[in-house]
Amino acid sequence: MKILGIDPGLATVGYGVIEKTPHKLVCVEYGVILTPKDESTPVRLAMIEEQMVALIDKHKPKEVAIEELFFNTNITTGIRVAEARGVLLLAAIKECGRLFEYTPLQVKMALTGNGRADKQQMQFMVRALLGLDQVPKPDDAADALAVAITHAHMTKDSQREAK
Amino acid sequence: MKILGIDPGLATVGYGVIEKTPHKLVCVEYGVILTPKDESTPVRLAMIEEQMVALIDKHKPKEVAIEELFFNTNITTGIRVAEARGVLLLAAIKECGRLFEYTPLQVKMALTGNGRADKQQMQFMVRALLGLDQVPKPDDAADALAVAITHAHMTKDSQREAK
Repeated sequence: MKILGIDPGLATVGYGVIEKTPHKLVCVEYGVILTPKDESTPVRLAMIEEQMVALIDKHKPKEVAIEELFFNTNITTGIRVAEARGVLLLAAIKECGRLFEYTPLQVKMALTGNGRADKQQMQFMVRALLGLDQVPKPDDAADALAVAITHAHMTKDSQREAK
Repeated sequence: MKILGIDPGLATVGYGVIEKTPHKLVCVEYGVILTPKDESTPVRLAMIEEQMVALIDKHKPKEVAIEELFFNTNITTGIRVAEARGVLLLAAIKECGRLFEYTPLQVKMALTGNGRADKQQMQFMVRALLGLDQVPKPDDAADALAVAITHAHMTKDSQREAK
């Protein structure tokens, strides 16, 4: 079963596609969707939608997992990220249909068993769990793979279908 | 020139279409897009997109004006509204192409000259400026008409194209 993990953003959307087999997880592709800062927000949202649709069309994931937003700092940036996340949710529900959301805490717990794991620990586990030679770069792509892995590890009872 | 004004939301999106002629503003249509609370957010976003596209297709506005978000209370609700706003921006840029944003303060100033005008004053002015017999209901539709009127009143120099 293919899973597409998404780390939402306006300037950078991280994505990671993994294949869940009975005995292991295989990394299929990862990367980032980038939008130029000198474009207007609506144009950047349209770029994100187009590339998200293309990703789903290319990989045809059975399910999409997307990180929930957690705001603690900049509310203005947060609004723009939430607008981008709305577009990502829209593309996922229209093109794939099966969509799950996980909080940053759930992702940390699923990968390391520690809700306060730091970035380095998380990246170490992404590399280890997918059997990669190196830590995936950039960070947003590694974050997206972590969300996909979280979804792959969930039993049916603990899955969080988007609500 | 037809202008579509939008008051963004997840449960309720207000909309108002006005025609700007050389000497007056004419109200063409107003109303709300409603989404059911028991549906998932992604499904509600897809409903909003579909109805927004249908609105633009029906009225073919030359420009769309949308209110900016202003958060002072519930951050969780705010995130959901921002996600819906992202979908509205996307539909507007794809279907219409010309998109302008105004803050609640700008809308109040444009309609009443008072940045602290209350809801009643605002609705009085919407009714008066459009020559309507009654205040448009529900409130979200009146708010959307106020955004459209704001855009109609702006000179080229003071227009705020979405950035």
